[in-house]
Amino acid sequence: MRVLGIDPGSVTTGYGLVELRGDTLHAVTFGAITTQAGLPFAQRLLRIHQELRTLLTRARPDCAAVEAVFFARNVQSALRLGQARGVALLALAEEKVEIHEYSALEVKQAVTSYGHAAKGQVQEMVRLLLGLAEAPSPVDAADALAVAICHHHAARLKARLRER
Amino acid sequence: MRVLGIDPGSVTTGYGLVELRGDTLHAVTFGAITTQAGLPFAQRLLRIHQELRTLLTRARPDCAAVEAVFFARNVQSALRLGQARGVALLALAEEKVEIHEYSALEVKQAVTSYGHAAKGQVQEMVRLLLGLAEAPSPVDAADALAVAICHHHAARLKARLRER
Repeated sequence: MRVLGIDPGSVTTGYGLVELRGDTLHAVTFGAITTQAGLPFAQRLLRIHQELRTLLTRARPDCAAVEAVFFARNVQSALRLGQARGVALLALAEEKVEIHEYSALEVKQAVTSYGHAAKGQVQEMVRLLLGLAEAPSPVDAADALAVAICHHHAARLKARLRER
Repeated sequence: MRVLGIDPGSVTTGYGLVELRGDTLHAVTFGAITTQAGLPFAQRLLRIHQELRTLLTRARPDCAAVEAVFFARNVQSALRLGQARGVALLALAEEKVEIHEYSALEVKQAVTSYGHAAKGQVQEMVRLLLGLAEAPSPVDAADALAVAICHHHAARLKARLRER
């Protein structure tokens, strides 16, 4: 199973494709889509959407995992994040990719043993869980890989419960 | 000049195409894109985006006007609104339609003589300004027509200032 994790943002949108091979998880590809600061907002959305469509065509994930958002600094940042998240969800819906949402706490619990982990710790745990030589960078890519790992764990748990 | 006003929302997205013919403004078309309450959010975004793309192809506006958002009830509603707004801005960018943003106050000032107008008053003023037999409905369509009227006024003001 190939899971594409996405961490949307108006400046940087992280992505990470995690595949289960036998018993181990592998990072097939990861990175971030960045948009120029000077660009009009609609042009930034256009770029995020286009890059994600291209990525989905190349990566062919079985499903996608995105962090559910419950908090934001303020209404303006929630609105900007919402706009970027909207075009990301749209790209997934257009490519008929099933979307699974997990809270930030669920994602952190999946990659660290407890929920309240520092950002750096998530990157390091993602590195260990995926057997990478270096911690994935930028941090948005690591966050995207983390939410993909979270879905793999949730899917495994569900499969085990079905077997009982 | 044909201006398409858009009032994005996750449940209802209002639109209204206002054309300047000689000295008077005419409502060419208006209405609202509604999404089913039970539909997954990404499917709603897909519908809003598809309907707007179809509308843009048919309506061929010279530019678009959208209300800038500064306030929201809370982070969750800002996020939902942002997601709908994101796919609306994307559709405009894809169709290479220039986007103009106006504050709620600017829109209300353009259609009523003062800024703090009740919702019903905006609908009635839009009806009078566009010479419609009935107040445009739903209210989201009236709001979309209002932001289009606002851009017509702003463009006329700019043109007059240039003439001086």
